[in-house]
Amino acid sequence: MKKSVLRSYAKLIAQKGGNVQKGQDVIIRASLDQPEFVRMLTEECYKCGARYVRVEWSDLGVTRITQKRASLRALSATEEWEEAKYKHESETLPVTIWLESDDPDGLKGVDQAKMSKASQARYKVRKPYRDAMENKHQWCIAAVPGVEWAKKVFPNEKKNRAVEKLWEAILYTSRADGEDPIAAWDAHNKNLASRCDYLNSLGIDRLEYKASNGTDLTVGMIEDALFMGGDEATEGRGVIFNPNIPSEEVFISPKRGLATGVVHASKPLSYRGEVIDGFWLRFEEGKVVEAHAERGEALLREMIAMDEGASYLGECALVPDNSPISNSGILFYNTLFDENAACHLALGFGFTNTLRDYDRYTMEECHQKGINDSMIHVDFMIGTPDLSIVAVTRTGERIRIFENGNWAF
Amino acid sequence: MKKSVLRSYAKLIAQKGGNVQKGQDVIIRASLDQPEFVRMLTEECYKCGARYVRVEWSDLGVTRITQKRASLRALSATEEWEEAKYKHESETLPVTIWLESDDPDGLKGVDQAKMSKASQARYKVRKPYRDAMENKHQWCIAAVPGVEWAKKVFPNEKKNRAVEKLWEAILYTSRADGEDPIAAWDAHNKNLASRCDYLNSLGIDRLEYKASNGTDLTVGMIEDALFMGGDEATEGRGVIFNPNIPSEEVFISPKRGLATGVVHASKPLSYRGEVIDGFWLRFEEGKVVEAHAERGEALLREMIAMDEGASYLGECALVPDNSPISNSGILFYNTLFDENAACHLALGFGFTNTLRDYDRYTMEECHQKGINDSMIHVDFMIGTPDLSIVAVTRTGERIRIFENGNWAF
Repeated sequence: MKKSVLRSYAKLIAQKGGNVQKGQDVIIRASLDQPEFVRMLTEECYKCGARYVRVEWSDLGVTRITQKRASLRALSATEEWEEAKYKHESETLPVTIWLESDDPDGLKGVDQAKMSKASQARYKVRKPYRDAMENKHQWCIAAVPGVEWAKKVFPNEKKNRAVEKLWEAILYTSRADGEDPIAAWDAHNKNLASRCDYLNSLGIDRLEYKASNGTDLTVGMIEDALFMGGDEATEGRGVIFNPNIPSEEVFISPKRGLATGVVHASKPLSYRGEVIDGFWLRFEEGKVVEAHAERGEALLREMIAMDEGASYLGECALVPDNSPISNSGILFYNTLFDENAACHLALGFGFTNTLRDYDRYTMEECHQKGINDSMIHVDFMIGTPDLSIVAVTRTGERIRIFENGNWAF
Repeated sequence: MKKSVLRSYAKLIAQKGGNVQKGQDVIIRASLDQPEFVRMLTEECYKCGARYVRVEWSDLGVTRITQKRASLRALSATEEWEEAKYKHESETLPVTIWLESDDPDGLKGVDQAKMSKASQARYKVRKPYRDAMENKHQWCIAAVPGVEWAKKVFPNEKKNRAVEKLWEAILYTSRADGEDPIAAWDAHNKNLASRCDYLNSLGIDRLEYKASNGTDLTVGMIEDALFMGGDEATEGRGVIFNPNIPSEEVFISPKRGLATGVVHASKPLSYRGEVIDGFWLRFEEGKVVEAHAERGEALLREMIAMDEGASYLGECALVPDNSPISNSGILFYNTLFDENAACHLALGFGFTNTLRDYDRYTMEECHQKGINDSMIHVDFMIGTPDLSIVAVTRTGERIRIFENGNWAF
């Protein structure tokens, strides 16, 4: 991939994704796959005025060995210095950038129950610091190709060619392959905002999903929740940033307890380094009461049992079938992309900032209003070319907002 | 390189280098060059019974950008959580393994004065924790090839071939390419120990170095200091480990204040990612009073001025010209190897455990006895094929211990 193109992509992530402010710290979390790009991104963050950019490398191979060999007790421990680090981050509010590149199947075969228990134990210590940062700092998830991931997406290509093709696909779907990616994102953000404005004007009480694969699901909304999409603003300082690159979705957090019916996943899901495929869920009073998968069913159940909130919905996202990711025809086996190719739902925590005037409420009050709380947030795709969604308004009007997988307005 | 050979090398580092004990933590510090080997080493540490192995990756390219772009203030800061981490390590005493692979010239052009000031500031916070760990935990420095390093050592080879040749050179010089590297190291440790026994029986008052390049230096010894070589034991638990792989040296820490004369370096020195070459130093009353270099003179002066102890000697090491590293004929541009191909000295801190019964003294008392203290410890090579060393004993006897660059006994 040409250096100048990669440089533009690095700028996009630093300026639009993280919108790094003068004097702000940045943390970049990356695997070892694209060190040259990580260096570029580091430099672009400094050019935005970052005080200090910390790159935290990790390796899925080492994680795999660690999860296998270390005791549950060792994996569950949070050392004092780690908690001090969480505290430091919750106080200094660094921009956090994740560069995804890992093998979607790289942790296959790892003891998922052990891994869950360890995460649960560590999450208990981490949660107050995560809550303290929520909505208050910029963050961005973007992607770079790793060899194993590229080989999974393009199994018939040789390593180097597969990586090159995955770079092309990432840059195309991220609207980062043109002359001026930043201008492209300005236009894109504007478009998503106008979709939200329309939806928010309807006074939606519930969404009814239907597709020929058996999906027949009704999800209730919170009265003062708003659809969001594209860029967001941090609470307080109001710094605008794009949390996902790419992003095609318009989303909302539904009301906990108001989902009823069956929904079928339309794409495989890579969760914790392992693929779950061919699955469906049945909801009653908002909660998953039945779950089946052709592949990875045990892991699916593990996921839903992570904590109490893991079996409730945290997000309803609308993505037209006609989007760059969907049009690329590529199955990425990575949620950042696949979720933006199709309508999706998420199990786990909801987004408190989807509430109107959310900054006037405590976290507790947000949850009382119906925003779900959990340690997980896992998107899964439900969009199909024949998906229809009807919005039932609080005045009882039925408005078709999705038809044949695309916006009906 | 064959996987089985690399696996043996990983075992050697885990078992002989670090001698990881059951329930002990391990920290592996590595660059991004050989993730597959780092995974093997991680696994071998767990097989020894490690409680938790933490791999801390870093990248010289990112370091370069950070040193250039971040302010001196940001570079000098130690965050509370970092200090908590030092404290944790000083209390839990993990085995620490460094896997060197960086470009010896990878930080060339970086502002060395800024880098020194930042190190000095950070060292102040770190020092008490480093002191608290001294002699109490196992550590090991070993090497794996990085592409830039390999291209520097084998400039006429293509990348992949250069890396392959550097693997071969590392494994050969580390006595890790045979059937049973662990047995080879047992024999080697025994041989080095018998050299030490002989030297320690002489009652040496001072060493006189002479070579045709102009070297004419006398270095005084501490009365109850001992020559050491090969494996060492931790204080308290007495765990035997090999701090350097490879290691051919027999060494002692001289008495601060007793070096007089001139010494010429016989090989280039890579210090902080930049090469210093063609240099000589003049000592008076133990202190460097004159320093010249054909290349990197400013950096050499920076190094000597790091702190008060940086201009005094901390180590005298004897290495025969007839050793695997020297016989390989390769200039590695890496101290771990080059120091083991030739007699060398070190500027900066000495080793308190070279004192007989060192564990009965406080750090302060060790320094009063003449062990130098500093934040740096930089070896530089002085061995030549015509180097002679005479040991003058406390009874006035003159015993030739080195002749024509090799052991004279």
